Parts: sequence; C-alpha cells; structure tokens
Amino acid sequence: MYKYIAMLTDFGTIDPYVGLMKSVILKINPSINIIDISHDISSFSIRAAAYILLVSKDYFPQGTIFLVVVDPGVGSKRRAVVVKTRNYIFVGPDNGVLYPAIIDDGVLDIRVIENSKLFLKPVSNTFHGRDIFAPVAAWLSRGLPIDSVGRRIDINDIIELDFNIVKLSSIIIDKTLCGEVIYVDKFGNIALNIRLPDFESLPYGRRVKIIANDRIFYAHTSRTFSLVRRGDIALYINSFKFLEIGVNMGNAAERLGVNIGDKICLEVENA
Amino acid sequence: MYKYIAMLTDFGTIDPYVGLMKSVILKINPSINIIDISHDISSFSIRAAAYILLVSKDYFPQGTIFLVVVDPGVGSKRRAVVVKTRNYIFVGPDNGVLYPAIIDDGVLDIRVIENSKLFLKPVSNTFHGRDIFAPVAAWLSRGLPIDSVGRRIDINDIIELDFNIVKLSSIIIDKTLCGEVIYVDKFGNIALNIRLPDFESLPYGRRVKIIANDRIFYAHTSRTFSLVRRGDIALYINSFKFLEIGVNMGNAAERLGVNIGDKICLEVENA
Amino acid sequence: MYKYIAMLTDFGTIDPYVGLMKSVILKINPSINIIDISHDISSFSIRAAAYILLVSKDYFPQGTIFLVVVDPGVGSKRRAVVVKTRNYIFVGPDNGVLYPAIIDDGVLDIRVIENSKLFLKPVSNTFHGRDIFAPVAAWLSRGLPIDSVGRRIDINDIIELDFNIVKLSSIIIDKTLCGEVIYVDKFGNIALNIRLPDFESLPYGRRVKIIANDRIFYAHTSRTFSLVRRGDIALYINSFKFLEIGVNMGNAAERLGVNIGDKICLEVENA
Repeated sequence: MYKYIAMLTDFGTIDPYVGLMKSVILKINPSINIIDISHDISSFSIRAAAYILLVSKDYFPQGTIFLVVVDPGVGSKRRAVVVKTRNYIFVGPDNGVLYPAIIDDGVLDIRVIENSKLFLKPVSNTFHGRDIFAPVAAWLSRGLPIDSVGRRIDINDIIELDFNIVKLSSIIIDKTLCGEVIYVDKFGNIALNIRLPDFESLPYGRRVKIIANDRIFYAHTSRTFSLVRRGDIALYINSFKFLEIGVNMGNAAERLGVNIGDKICLEVENA
Repeated sequence: MYKYIAMLTDFGTIDPYVGLMKSVILKINPSINIIDISHDISSFSIRAAAYILLVSKDYFPQGTIFLVVVDPGVGSKRRAVVVKTRNYIFVGPDNGVLYPAIIDDGVLDIRVIENSKLFLKPVSNTFHGRDIFAPVAAWLSRGLPIDSVGRRIDINDIIELDFNIVKLSSIIIDKTLCGEVIYVDKFGNIALNIRLPDFESLPYGRRVKIIANDRIFYAHTSRTFSLVRRGDIALYINSFKFLEIGVNMGNAAERLGVNIGDKICLEVENA
Repeated sequence: MYKYIAMLTDFGTIDPYVGLMKSVILKINPSINIIDISHDISSFSIRAAAYILLVSKDYFPQGTIFLVVVDPGVGSKRRAVVVKTRNYIFVGPDNGVLYPAIIDDGVLDIRVIENSKLFLKPVSNTFHGRDIFAPVAAWLSRGLPIDSVGRRIDINDIIELDFNIVKLSSIIIDKTLCGEVIYVDKFGNIALNIRLPDFESLPYGRRVKIIANDRIFYAHTSRTFSLVRRGDIALYINSFKFLEIGVNMGNAAERLGVNIGDKICLEVENA
C-alpha cells in the first residue's frame, strides 16, 4: 500500500536504536523501503528536527510515512500521534516536532496512538521508538486505516511549535531586518526564519551589516557562499529558500558565535 | 534462503569500509537485505559490541545472519568463526564479541572459517571484514551449508566473554547492590550488568544512593529519566530490562564520571 | 538497466542532505539500490574523497553509477560532469575528485552536465547534489544515454588531480623512501602514496626509521598493526596495497602529528 517510511530521530548511529526500529518495521512489513533523513539531530532538539521535517517533506514521494522520534518526554504523559495530511502520514510524539510540517502540508486527520494491540509487548518506558512508533508506522504502511490507531483529536488539541517565519516578497535595501536562527547545518551555515519566494530574489554583490549578539559583522549578498572570497561571509538564499549566512570554506556559526534561537538583524546596504 | 544480514562493526562512517563490505555482499547475493545495527562502536570495544549484540538480536527476524566485525586482532592468530544458534547465524572473529549473544540464544554448531574458496582474493592482512567475513556471510545467506565453512569446534574452544550479569527477581530495599557499567549510550545513560524480570519491577519514587568511583550521588527511582526534574538523576529499567542511570535532559556518564567496566554500587532507600 | 548507485559525499549525517538526494533518486527510479560509500568525508576534502573513490570502485558491481558530491565550488563556474569508464559511470563536479578513479578505470566518454530538462526545478545555488547530480544519476540508472546529458569534452579539458603515486615492485633496504600522506582513516592509520604489487611485498620484522615533520620515530615492518606490541608503530601494506603506518590499539596520525598532504620519509633497516 505504502512504499516508503522516512525516519528522522536523534538516536545517533552509535547505539543500536535505529537498527532495532528498522528490524521491528521489517518484521511487520518486509517489502517496505526505509529512507533515513537523519538520526543525528542534536539530542532533544525538537526545533532542529521540526525545521528539517518542514523543509524535507516535499522531496519525498506522495504517500511517504514520516516516522519522527525526537522525544525527550518519552515515558511521561506526552501523547503520541498519527497525522494524515494532504500528501503524507506523520507518526511521532505530540511535542511540536511535527507541527510546522503538518500545518504546511494541510492536516486532514489527527489520531492519538492508543490502540495497544499494535504495540510491541511489553512496552518499555524509555524506547517508544521501538515499541510504539515503529510498529504503528509499519502497520499503517501495510494499509491499516488511520482510525484504527486511536480517537480523533483536533489541531487545537496538539502542541504548537511556531517558527514565526517571516515571508518576504523581496529584500528592502537600507532597512533593518531581524529574524532568528532556525537551523545550523554541519558546515556551520546559519539559516534564518526569513523565507523568500525564489532563489533569485536577493540583489547580489551588496554589502550587508549583520548584528548578532551585539557584535557587528560585514558580509556580501551572493548567489552562494562559494562566490565570496575564501573566509568572507556571504548572505544568500539557501536550497529551501530561507535566508542563510555562510563563510566560504569556513564555519559561519562559529564566526558569528550563534546557535539555534539566537536573534540576528541585518541590513542590505545600497552599494 | 536467508533474507537479512545485520551488520555490527567499529568501522565508523567516515571511511569506505562498511560500503565495501556491502558491495562485496551484494555482488554475491544481490537480493539480500542489509540492516545496520551500528558501525560506530568505540574502536576496538569488544565489550560494547557484545552488549549491543546480546540485547539487539531478539528483535530481528528469525534466520537473520549477524555479521560482526569488531576485530582489533585482525591479521593475528585469532580465529574467525560462524556460529549457528537456535534462531540465528553469527559470523565474526573469535574474540568474545559473539559470546554473550550465542550463549543466550543457544549454540547449535560452531565452525572455524577456513575454507579459503569463499574468500575475496588476495586476502589482505588488515581488512578481513571485506575479504573474509562479508563473503562468508553472503554465501551463507545464499544457503551454503555451515559445514562448508570449516571444521567444527566446541563451545569450550572459543573465547569466553562473561558480563557476570546479576539477575534479580526484585530490588531489595536498604540493601547495597553492586554491579558494573556494561554500556554507555549516546545520551550518556549508564546501563549496569543488573537485569530485572520486567519493566515494572522497580518501586518508583524512592531515593537512591549511588556510589561510583568513591563519589556519592543521589537519585530517584523512576519509570524513566524524563519523570525526574530536569538535571536530576534517575534510576530506571532500560528498554532491554537492565538497570540504568540517566539524567533528565543531561548526560549521566559525564555527571558520575564513569566508563564501561567501572563498578557502581547503589542502595534504594525505604522512603 | 543499472542496479546500483553508490554515493560518496561530505554532507555528513546530521543534516537531511543525503536523505533528500535519495528521495529524489527514488522518485525517478524506484527500483534502484543505493549504497553509501561515505558521507563523512572532511568538509571540502577533495583529496580524501578522490582517494576513497580510487580504492573503492573495483569492489562494486560492473555498471555501478558513482554519485560523488564533494563540491566546495557549488554555484560557482565549476562544471558538473558525467564520465563513462570501462566498467562504471561517474557523476560529480569537475574539481578533480573523480580524476584518479576515472584514469585508473579507463575513460571512454566525458560529458558536461548541461541538459537542464533533467534537473529538479527550480535549481538552487547551494545544493546541486539534490537538484542536478542526484536526478542526472537517477535518469542514467534508468538507461538514459550519456550523450543526452550534454556535450562531449576531452580528458585534457577537465581538472586534474594527481596523487603522484609511487609504484614500487619491492622495498629497497637501507634506502630512504619518501612519499606523502594520501589518507588518514578513522583509526588514525596513515596511508602513504606508495603502492606495492601485493600484500606480501614487505619484509617483516625489520626496524623502520620514519621522519615526519622533522621528527624521528621508529617502527617495525609487519603484516598488520596488530602484530606489533600494544602502542608500538607498525609499517604494513594496507588493504588497498598502499604503504600504511599504524599503531596497535592506538592512533598513528596523532602520534606522528601528520595530516593529509604531509611528507613522510622512511628507511627500512637491514636488521
């Protein structure tokens, strides 16, 4: 029925947790294809995972089941949910991690995971990825109707996570624009919560003043980080159409000393 | 014949070693499914790999072939073995890494890998994962009988690795209980070599005195780490039914300053 | 038509970049098998990736498509190419990363990637892995003829990367032999750009004087690192037939204080 399960967790690749989730899935649905989005989200970083899920989902085939386990509240009262959206199914904890992605895709149905017949027994208190989320995703991939999972709840009943994304139609010159760090990638590139309509909506070659944690930096607008001089700072539109700050052959997050959640203001100058 | 090969190595994901083992396997058996348990075992850590294999195996489909290469003695006189157990086949070096898992599952047949017709030629001295273990696992997955691999040896002829697991039926209050660190996971959670019969066999909400390397810490028993206050220490039963020490949103191994093999004593108090 | 795409990138496993490339590939060719060689090449390390590709390719099935994205110049004027060799197809940036592997396998046809009908639209400036390289590899795997990708260019038109590999038929005793560090693996083993004809072409048990960055170290020749005493330095032939320096249960690159590109001289002594 469904061909793909895409996994996103903070379990890392040292421990066997991800492999065990996969073996549980394959025992239930041997013909499923599992794609790893990432398992190296910073431990407990719900916001980083929510951003990755938001920007990644559209690249997956329609009908993909997203299995998301970034779950610092495992074993507490936090609920587990399945969300059917216009194009996908999402399975994960109700802690906000799914929120930006499901809102963006359009929510059709939300269910609380409570049908314990689907679970691996006995259910542990610390590894619901293996005992609850993986088997539920696997049964759904075999065509189990979502209403078998549990009772329906409303979008207002689940935990909200809002990136306060600033949607601009263009960059206004000589005007201060503020946002916050929404993600820092492996290369140290800093994505801001400011989104533009297309990859070309930033005038190139302008000087940019950047204020981060009361320190001032200068950059240039560019099509990409590799077009400024080695070691220089570039402001560009990243591959998900968010405004991003990078350093050619360097690490921008270290240079600017910022982390997810920090406020950054910038001003694209006239010349 | 066999559908799954599950891999466990300390090769990491930086070098091409794991990819090369997979390409060797797929050349021999293109229809096999390969599941990664972990490739990021600490270099040479036979004990960590042995614990992971022990606790992971039961989640895999019957007939899974476990291909285990944590092999600091590669190229020396250490033997390579194939072990048939009640439910699985294990392929790896004879250095103890397979021992706890095969004993737990029940050994049926042990063979020394010596049929060089199965090997990739020429056999290197440093990468038996690619040249010996991977092709042997692949040929077995195609149905090669285990007796084609080499001569039979006895369980007493292979290297033992004993975790001295303390099996308790319950926790006795106000009595000192000592064990050793059997594993530390990515989150810093500390598993002890003390196993309980089920996830609920620990009384909750009791104060616990922990002695580790002559330092004293206080924790509370809990269903899971997320139910104590942020930064507090919890004692709980982990998802494999071993006693475990964790810190809510923190790293217990750093807090207690312990590593695999260290002794830890604890006393669950009456109130 | 083609069964395997083998991926080699520096994208890491934290960010979703690799998962997105895979989802793009599977949307175009759902029946392809994707094998990861590595995604943890040091950021921008073209030389490390070129070495890995060179030594890995021969272990893959004939007809494998190698998808290589180590691409610090993304979005600049650097070209993207497809190279058909005697046994394989290579897809990647024209920055030297493919060069040693394609020369070694024998170049049949080189094409500049310029047929934008194959690309994911709109093409970003920062993630050609997802928007250009992945879809081109996927279309080729479905049997698209290489001449549909773009115009033919000559081997002299692409960027060269030469490891200046010293090919020896044997080691000459008491003679200084110099080379440079071509790769350092996860264990800290140091591969030199000196290649020997077979795994046995080094006399064992000889003392070796090693000069690295003006410091002198002593090692012994050995079949492998595990045959010298714990903590001692060994000189041996690695699994790809390059001369390599390792430390038994230790890290040779840290001990000698060397990195990729550093010069190392050594002298195998008579006794």
